[in-house]
Amino acid sequence: MTTTAVTHIATLVTNDPSLGDGTPLGLIQDAAVVIDGDRVVWTGETSKAPATDNAVDAGGRAMVPGFVDSHSHLVFSGDRTQEFHARMSGRPYSAGGIRTTVAATRAASDEELSANVARYLAEALHQGTTTLETKSGYGLTVRDEARALRIAAAHTDEVTYLGAHIVAPEYADDPAGYVDLVTGPMLDACAPYARWIDVFCERGAFDGDQARAVLTAGLARGLRARVHANQLGPGPGVQLAVELGAASADHCTHLTDDDLDALGQGDTVATLLPGAEFSTRAAWPDARRLLDAGATVALSTDCNPGSSFTSSMAFCVALAVRDMGMTPDEALWSATAGGAAALRRTDVGRVTPGARADLVLLDAPSHVHLAYRPGVPLTHAVWRGGERVR
Amino acid sequence: MTTTAVTHIATLVTNDPSLGDGTPLGLIQDAAVVIDGDRVVWTGETSKAPATDNAVDAGGRAMVPGFVDSHSHLVFSGDRTQEFHARMSGRPYSAGGIRTTVAATRAASDEELSANVARYLAEALHQGTTTLETKSGYGLTVRDEARALRIAAAHTDEVTYLGAHIVAPEYADDPAGYVDLVTGPMLDACAPYARWIDVFCERGAFDGDQARAVLTAGLARGLRARVHANQLGPGPGVQLAVELGAASADHCTHLTDDDLDALGQGDTVATLLPGAEFSTRAAWPDARRLLDAGATVALSTDCNPGSSFTSSMAFCVALAVRDMGMTPDEALWSATAGGAAALRRTDVGRVTPGARADLVLLDAPSHVHLAYRPGVPLTHAVWRGGERVR
Ligand SMILES: [Zn+2]
Ligand SMILES: [Zn+2]
Repeated sequence: MTTTAVTHIATLVTNDPSLGDGTPLGLIQDAAVVIDGDRVVWTGETSKAPATDNAVDAGGRAMVPGFVDSHSHLVFSGDRTQEFHARMSGRPYSAGGIRTTVAATRAASDEELSANVARYLAEALHQGTTTLETKSGYGLTVRDEARALRIAAAHTDEVTYLGAHIVAPEYADDPAGYVDLVTGPMLDACAPYARWIDVFCERGAFDGDQARAVLTAGLARGLRARVHANQLGPGPGVQLAVELGAASADHCTHLTDDDLDALGQGDTVATLLPGAEFSTRAAWPDARRLLDAGATVALSTDCNPGSSFTSSMAFCVALAVRDMGMTPDEALWSATAGGAAALRRTDVGRVTPGARADLVLLDAPSHVHLAYRPGVPLTHAVWRGGERVR
Repeated sequence: MTTTAVTHIATLVTNDPSLGDGTPLGLIQDAAVVIDGDRVVWTGETSKAPATDNAVDAGGRAMVPGFVDSHSHLVFSGDRTQEFHARMSGRPYSAGGIRTTVAATRAASDEELSANVARYLAEALHQGTTTLETKSGYGLTVRDEARALRIAAAHTDEVTYLGAHIVAPEYADDPAGYVDLVTGPMLDACAPYARWIDVFCERGAFDGDQARAVLTAGLARGLRARVHANQLGPGPGVQLAVELGAASADHCTHLTDDDLDALGQGDTVATLLPGAEFSTRAAWPDARRLLDAGATVALSTDCNPGSSFTSSMAFCVALAVRDMGMTPDEALWSATAGGAAALRRTDVGRVTPGARADLVLLDAPSHVHLAYRPGVPLTHAVWRGGERVR
């Protein structure tokens, strides 16, 4: 193995509070990082860096851990530009919503779906996202859900079975029958490809009892749980997620005090998806309230063609600071270490010895610039697993 | 001269309502654009394009006119990251505000200032901004203002004298004396380098009478007027701008009905700067109200290190759609043709025969994606004056 040092990093975010300035970000000034193979083997001040085979001068730029985007919906086909255009122009539009995407996804070839996942994964990687979860949920038949997961699994390790996205159109009059399908034959076909099971627990999708049935069936098959919860209104999703030990409750836009207590005391991460509120002109989730209650907060894009078609974690950081009461430090932590927590990963989301060498060099001297310079593409270089990919 | 055709443009925004679909954007589907030297010489459907020396296949991407950013403050030195960090973290910070930047700018060498302007111009160009206005205003002495304008003029044609940004610290007890300086010796030194004169007409900066004195002095020297007006509260700036025939009243966040009438009836453009409201957590300007009153609206970044450190016109478009009541079409128009109107330019902001060949190819099939895919860097290729610069 050859070793590479990245030196003269103006500010390094390690996310290890035992390092550097002792804050949760573990900031080191004029830092160096040494990579050996796919791992970080050393972090510290440039002046103390060990000898290495190669060196890259960061030129006074900041380095942050690769973003961990723990929530996306990339196995889709079709376009919903017209629906967005009409919504944002105040024009009526008979949108089919998710069903539009379901129809297009079912009609697409494997190659089309695979190319779509690859395209958006590459776009995200280009912007510094080195770990990305993605889901099924636009197939809603045994065949189409399994196909979606098989395709997703060819591109990323973090694959989530979301047969319970909405009730399939064919089961509109028999939602119980659809839950039986999702927890029976569809689960059988999908479990081999997925690490996670998820359910959209919301009025108009699946109620608390249905969501419980979906999650417990998945847990019994060895999948781990995550939940779409409390996006459009209050509901049982968050409490169910905590009760079942889900890794994450995602959205968390409408929380009661009891929800807040549950998230503050349990170890279910509250994953906030500001792109969804941005693109639907909805009220913001209150990250400040969650943090003050002791919850672990993650930020993610929710990248999907209907309600949040951004792949930019930097954009989510800027929104979280502007509109959700997070400090720039908290937002950066949530977009990296927070996402790792939401995926129960300890190998990513930090820049410390033993971690995967997932690194982003910014065209800026500090991580604060992700919020200070909103909308500006600041990704200068990206390493994933020790390999320079940008 | 060799001619180049860009063909198979999924959607071309010409900003000429006599073309294509007849909307203000003059949209042409499956379009081609022919460039000869620095000019557009033909636009229409690909199938009807004339023969050319070279061809570039747009591959189903959309093309928009290069963005026209009519308001920035790039002649500065120093960093205000700590001030931003503290503000967004709720921590007290004894910020010097603009004065911090004035001190750093005065202390900087010509080379440092020039490099700074070049850096942010290049960053903006990389994001599709092909016309960019910039200002003095961090010098506030005869020597430092003239120096700022000389440096700016070496980089862009659109240079604005803003000696009346704030009262110089040395004149804190003699604002009338500072106005005399700005309208006298400083104007003499600055006028040769500038096209525009501007004043920050706001409580705490310059009142209506002072602003009038500044603008009329500049007009008498052959400069044209633009005004920082009604950003932090209601005031006389907008009405003064219209009365004096200013090309633009910039910010327009706090407008009375009379201000609205004036902008709706006059030909002063209302330039909205959503980056400023974003980065200061201020209330948004109401673009809808302005458009409904018949005003011409431009969008611009206000790029500066204190209150709006974005150079992204795409980001401004997304904010305008999300938070200011603009449709995606209106926002795109305002970021291109609107900016051109605010600079009284007819050669930019459109893609029609005779216009300067300032073109942006997006990694998306329509201009709507600038709002539909917020934060995602969508600039695929950029031509400025017929030259491919990205
Ligand atoms: Zn989702
Ligand atoms: Zn300004």
